[in-house]
Amino acid sequence: MSETSPPAPAMRSPSLPTGPSPRRYPRPALSSLGLSPGKRTRLKRLLYQYGPGGGTLLILPIDQGLEHGPVDFFANPDSLDPKYQYELAREGKFSAIALHIGLAEKYFHEYAGDVPLILKLNGKTAVPSDSQAFSPLTGTVEDAVRLGADAVGYTVYVGSPAQDRDFRQFLDVRQDAERLGMPVVVWAYPRGEAIAKRGGKEGLYAVDYAARVALELGADIVKLNYPVASEKDAESPAPYNSLHLSADEAFRKVVESAGRALVLVSGGEKVGDQEMLKKVRSSMDAGATGIIFGRNLWQRPKAEALRVTREIHAIFREYAQPPA
Amino acid sequence: MSETSPPAPAMRSPSLPTGPSPRRYPRPALSSLGLSPGKRTRLKRLLYQYGPGGGTLLILPIDQGLEHGPVDFFANPDSLDPKYQYELAREGKFSAIALHIGLAEKYFHEYAGDVPLILKLNGKTAVPSDSQAFSPLTGTVEDAVRLGADAVGYTVYVGSPAQDRDFRQFLDVRQDAERLGMPVVVWAYPRGEAIAKRGGKEGLYAVDYAARVALELGADIVKLNYPVASEKDAESPAPYNSLHLSADEAFRKVVESAGRALVLVSGGEKVGDQEMLKKVRSSMDAGATGIIFGRNLWQRPKAEALRVTREIHAIFREYAQPPA
Amino acid sequence: MSETSPPAPAMRSPSLPTGPSPRRYPRPALSSLGLSPGKRTRLKRLLYQYGPGGGTLLILPIDQGLEHGPVDFFANPDSLDPKYQYELAREGKFSAIALHIGLAEKYFHEYAGDVPLILKLNGKTAVPSDSQAFSPLTGTVEDAVRLGADAVGYTVYVGSPAQDRDFRQFLDVRQDAERLGMPVVVWAYPRGEAIAKRGGKEGLYAVDYAARVALELGADIVKLNYPVASEKDAESPAPYNSLHLSADEAFRKVVESAGRALVLVSGGEKVGDQEMLKKVRSSMDAGATGIIFGRNLWQRPKAEALRVTREIHAIFREYAQPPA
Amino acid sequence: MSETSPPAPAMRSPSLPTGPSPRRYPRPALSSLGLSPGKRTRLKRLLYQYGPGGGTLLILPIDQGLEHGPVDFFANPDSLDPKYQYELAREGKFSAIALHIGLAEKYFHEYAGDVPLILKLNGKTAVPSDSQAFSPLTGTVEDAVRLGADAVGYTVYVGSPAQDRDFRQFLDVRQDAERLGMPVVVWAYPRGEAIAKRGGKEGLYAVDYAARVALELGADIVKLNYPVASEKDAESPAPYNSLHLSADEAFRKVVESAGRALVLVSGGEKVGDQEMLKKVRSSMDAGATGIIFGRNLWQRPKAEALRVTREIHAIFREYAQPPA
Amino acid sequence: MSETSPPAPAMRSPSLPTGPSPRRYPRPALSSLGLSPGKRTRLKRLLYQYGPGGGTLLILPIDQGLEHGPVDFFANPDSLDPKYQYELAREGKFSAIALHIGLAEKYFHEYAGDVPLILKLNGKTAVPSDSQAFSPLTGTVEDAVRLGADAVGYTVYVGSPAQDRDFRQFLDVRQDAERLGMPVVVWAYPRGEAIAKRGGKEGLYAVDYAARVALELGADIVKLNYPVASEKDAESPAPYNSLHLSADEAFRKVVESAGRALVLVSGGEKVGDQEMLKKVRSSMDAGATGIIFGRNLWQRPKAEALRVTREIHAIFREYAQPPA
Repeated sequence: MSETSPPAPAMRSPSLPTGPSPRRYPRPALSSLGLSPGKRTRLKRLLYQYGPGGGTLLILPIDQGLEHGPVDFFANPDSLDPKYQYELAREGKFSAIALHIGLAEKYFHEYAGDVPLILKLNGKTAVPSDSQAFSPLTGTVEDAVRLGADAVGYTVYVGSPAQDRDFRQFLDVRQDAERLGMPVVVWAYPRGEAIAKRGGKEGLYAVDYAARVALELGADIVKLNYPVASEKDAESPAPYNSLHLSADEAFRKVVESAGRALVLVSGGEKVGDQEMLKKVRSSMDAGATGIIFGRNLWQRPKAEALRVTREIHAIFREYAQPPA
Repeated sequence: MSETSPPAPAMRSPSLPTGPSPRRYPRPALSSLGLSPGKRTRLKRLLYQYGPGGGTLLILPIDQGLEHGPVDFFANPDSLDPKYQYELAREGKFSAIALHIGLAEKYFHEYAGDVPLILKLNGKTAVPSDSQAFSPLTGTVEDAVRLGADAVGYTVYVGSPAQDRDFRQFLDVRQDAERLGMPVVVWAYPRGEAIAKRGGKEGLYAVDYAARVALELGADIVKLNYPVASEKDAESPAPYNSLHLSADEAFRKVVESAGRALVLVSGGEKVGDQEMLKKVRSSMDAGATGIIFGRNLWQRPKAEALRVTREIHAIFREYAQPPA
Repeated sequence: MSETSPPAPAMRSPSLPTGPSPRRYPRPALSSLGLSPGKRTRLKRLLYQYGPGGGTLLILPIDQGLEHGPVDFFANPDSLDPKYQYELAREGKFSAIALHIGLAEKYFHEYAGDVPLILKLNGKTAVPSDSQAFSPLTGTVEDAVRLGADAVGYTVYVGSPAQDRDFRQFLDVRQDAERLGMPVVVWAYPRGEAIAKRGGKEGLYAVDYAARVALELGADIVKLNYPVASEKDAESPAPYNSLHLSADEAFRKVVESAGRALVLVSGGEKVGDQEMLKKVRSSMDAGATGIIFGRNLWQRPKAEALRVTREIHAIFREYAQPPA
Repeated sequence: MSETSPPAPAMRSPSLPTGPSPRRYPRPALSSLGLSPGKRTRLKRLLYQYGPGGGTLLILPIDQGLEHGPVDFFANPDSLDPKYQYELAREGKFSAIALHIGLAEKYFHEYAGDVPLILKLNGKTAVPSDSQAFSPLTGTVEDAVRLGADAVGYTVYVGSPAQDRDFRQFLDVRQDAERLGMPVVVWAYPRGEAIAKRGGKEGLYAVDYAARVALELGADIVKLNYPVASEKDAESPAPYNSLHLSADEAFRKVVESAGRALVLVSGGEKVGDQEMLKKVRSSMDAGATGIIFGRNLWQRPKAEALRVTREIHAIFREYAQPPA
Repeated sequence: MSETSPPAPAMRSPSLPTGPSPRRYPRPALSSLGLSPGKRTRLKRLLYQYGPGGGTLLILPIDQGLEHGPVDFFANPDSLDPKYQYELAREGKFSAIALHIGLAEKYFHEYAGDVPLILKLNGKTAVPSDSQAFSPLTGTVEDAVRLGADAVGYTVYVGSPAQDRDFRQFLDVRQDAERLGMPVVVWAYPRGEAIAKRGGKEGLYAVDYAARVALELGADIVKLNYPVASEKDAESPAPYNSLHLSADEAFRKVVESAGRALVLVSGGEKVGDQEMLKKVRSSMDAGATGIIFGRNLWQRPKAEALRVTREIHAIFREYAQPPA
């Protein structure tokens, strides 16, 4: 496919939800994923042995100190100390905590075996311009193995002018992960000027494309944002510029594009409780496997964060399924 | 979470010192750091067996000949000969001397076993523009092992447009250091145009971010400058643009952001004695593990430098703690 | 020259001590050894910064559990727990403790930085016949570096039919040690049928030859047993079969054969206090650099072991010399 | 310390020669350099066994054909044939000849063992702009070993925008040379726009900085140009902009900045005999170890070149010293 | 060629000296050897720049401490300290000293550049039975390069049952030496039961075969013993069993078999002065390039050893030739 905006295909019969009551879409079954024994062992641990279980994922990310800086910790000063998040993950019974090598090396030893680890393998600061967005490696799959992690995380900037380096760097990570039986979680983010001209990084066109790219490149799990409808959608390539889907429909669409890559919904900035819990439920209805919520949870005092976490657990129980 | 600069969160209750009398904040305990035996052996040697001991660090750097040029030695012509600093380190009972491969290969053999060595692994000259600041490798972790060094040093330019290459280069250093049990000291320096637009490289925003980046990337020890308040703070991202912290509060803040990376305070340019000793005490109060003072010490005649060093030792004795 | 056993040369004037009062022979000066900076740093640490200092070495070995089996711990049941020896080494201010990888991995982290480590790199059990004596590797120089060791140990069985493999294996250890600046301590033990026919493994011929082999192969330090005179000496090659040296003269002879390899005297089985202290003094008189006493020390209750250790420290102080 | 160009420190008492009669400054003693046996063997050969001896170096470079092109050979057409320089080096009893791989492979075999070889490992042509000056590798340290060379040469362009790549490339050369015991001669040349703005590549600031950079990066020998005073000095950073040193004082200054890197004086373009011999004497007075004169010698007919070479030998005899 | 005893060839016209006055046979010219530049450089250094020069070689070996044990040093106790031989080599102006890695690492640094080094790369002790004679590696060609050696030495046991391992081991040494331009000296020794049955290791059959094996395997220089006529010659394969050559004729024969491998004559055990000097002269007449005399020289007090060495120099001057 050429990288210029493609002509609008005739849209035959979109597999989108219809009718008044929301349908529940199935998550991909573990047995369908063609996983090597190592990946299967580790994924099953995350899906069934730790966290809410029942085939769901509740991930606590704490890479914001690198990606945004300490600024994100002002809202809840306790959260500046990584022990806060580690303890929240343990007490809140999360499926895993996701973070960079430094926070793993210095703190994980106190929680090893209690909280599964997703080692984030690349990252960058918020300081240099995002115009050539690219996250260099900060760790390796071997680091993850050495530390006893159960998955690795990697950010791909779909559409960035630096995409070629990004794909190449990801190739090595994916191959190491394959060789060592380590599941790969892809943070799939649209970025760059060309994306901006096609409806923006939060538009359905961009998020949908990112979901598919993650699948195509070999992600086992993909972290996706909810597409946000806006007037910029009009600049999206056809037929995106005229789809007019609801938020739930749009998210359902990207879950479908992710295929057999399990979908994690990103929390984004902190929002109100009801809005957040509604998003959890909608995501699960749409076929997501779980959520990856950071600031929405740890930008709160711990008691409050735990209370909300319990509510999420309750919702997840409704979506629990036995291993297949 | 999104990776663009986030909006200013509401600031709840910053964990900063309050009240009239300065509080002493604890340094991270060695036993909490999750260190491999080799890192632990070497760090313990620096913290307890050499130098002032008691868990403190007094480091003499002499990389200015490369970073600034011989110009820094004019103030004390004796200091042009590296033996001056080596002898100052030995007589002044420093925890370690920090320098590049050439000064190690040619001079260290006369001081081996008497003064621990921190081999600085990357550096650059002051001549080319700093706009793409990046320090290429001048030595390797294997060089450090071969020379009998007890730690390695690495400069990260946080925010530089060349940050990609820097993170990637650091990854290799960090992994070699992990494999060989060698502690890593990160010189964490904000740099580049984007930093200049966010309050400048000496502002709290920049230094605070640099402290956290060092922690996230896996530094065992981080060298930090005191943040300097100025009118440029107004250009910092919120809430930094309205914090108005005292110098001590600001430094306390960055020590906290460094987490379990032990903090060394940079001396910067030579200042008066009282100001310098006051800085030492404030730093230790704020939870720093020690200081890395170069020009403030070796830009003086030796007798004077030793006199001041003795005063630093005396202060450090107040902060001495048994190994834990 | 031919490489078969040569005929006995006429002995002109053996450089052996004469007269009633024992002479003190000098130890090789550190500065004469042609050491790389790394070896120099680490050796100087052992000789001057830890242990009795003054250029002496007091080493506590605990490889008997592998070499002899737990049988050696019956005499002092506390000694079965490796912490016993570690604590003895720390409290008794030993220059280093010498042991295998397992005892290093599992226990050393609690003593890292307090007691220097000599990682023993090869060993065997007492069970299979000694007729083809050969100690395979149990660790590597990189292990030693990673653990923060200050030297490595290697057993050479001089004269064993498996000598070929032994020399070849040692070559790799020696080269890695050279590359990484790690001093090499050679346990030089005569072994095998051919040795048995030439006066036995404790005879002067055998020990003298072993000392020289260690020097020729590149040992920095060599552990030697006191030659034991016996009627078997008559079967030694000339002129050894007619030398009739005293124990002190014989040991002086082997120290000289070791040349610039520093000599450690082996303690062997436990003997009485006075005999042991006399051996310490005689060894130092003969030019030894120190002692490596295991069972003689840790087969006692700790209070008693520490008392004897203090007496050894007192003797060593008489032989203390400044670094040269 | 900060790594930006620092403000001018107050200059206390520069360690420069004073008074009417020129003082002789000592060269670094071979024994002080901490050399491995291989570097020591090869350097001693150059300093004492070949060439003028007595610890001096007389080097004939012939890399101008690559660096400048055949244009340099017009002045003396015989010099176009590399045999001319090889024979001059042999008949004139030079300490070594310095050249690139092609001139070594094709011609050196006829002079092997008679004239020591310094294999130049990087170079470039004069054709592309010097604004990003960088010399890529043309040979390796293994090439030098294979050819029987006694040293390798490497050009560093201090201050060039390509300094990053240069330092990194030099790192590999330095490590190979250390591993194989091969001395490293650094051609230390200031270059680039930023240098031009700070008094130019021939100014004292630039040459002094280059001398120190070579020392810091690990040069065993550094080739330096005489600093040239000019009105551009006023643009140098303080205090260089107001030093007003004589040519001899300025050169003495850079020799001191080179520390334990032995200094070779560059000849530069051809000058008159008396001026050249005066420069030789001044350099040796200032503590240089020798000279590296190319065009000044081989741009003459051989008889004349040999006559001048004999005069240089005569001067060097005055500076001869026994090995130390 | 089969390895069983070949049938007796008809002997046409052996190229042996005839008539009353001994003829001088030429040594192979350096230019005829097809040497790489590195080998040529190093060999020329040994043949012309150090030692007696004029294309001759005077080598002092000191590997007897390993091969025979300290027993060889009794005749001259001073010789037990390797400095004795090093100083003899320097004062006696030897072409090189030949020894193992330990004596190189610990002592060579004091003589580097003054006495060329031949690093002996394999060896064994005299203790295990010689029936499977094989010398394992004790060093590598890279060690030799690193130490600044000018050649390497290797013992081949021709005819030993372990010959297959020996040839294979030599292959690697020879290839490394070729790659790094390092001349190879082969100690060619017949050994083993099969040799014993064919006239013994000192018989002409065995030595002649060993000379040819060294040439065939790629030796640059071969160390050979004088064949010794005895009644065991009768057991040699025809026609060796009926040649009845004089000692000089026999040696001439083996020199011819060595072809373009330069021949060093072994000294063997110490003999009287006149006998030794006669052997030197005979060897040179027969086309040897030099001698390798150990015990004959260093089993004497130094003054005496130097006197004899001067006599050897005087003889060598008669055989001096310019480089060709």
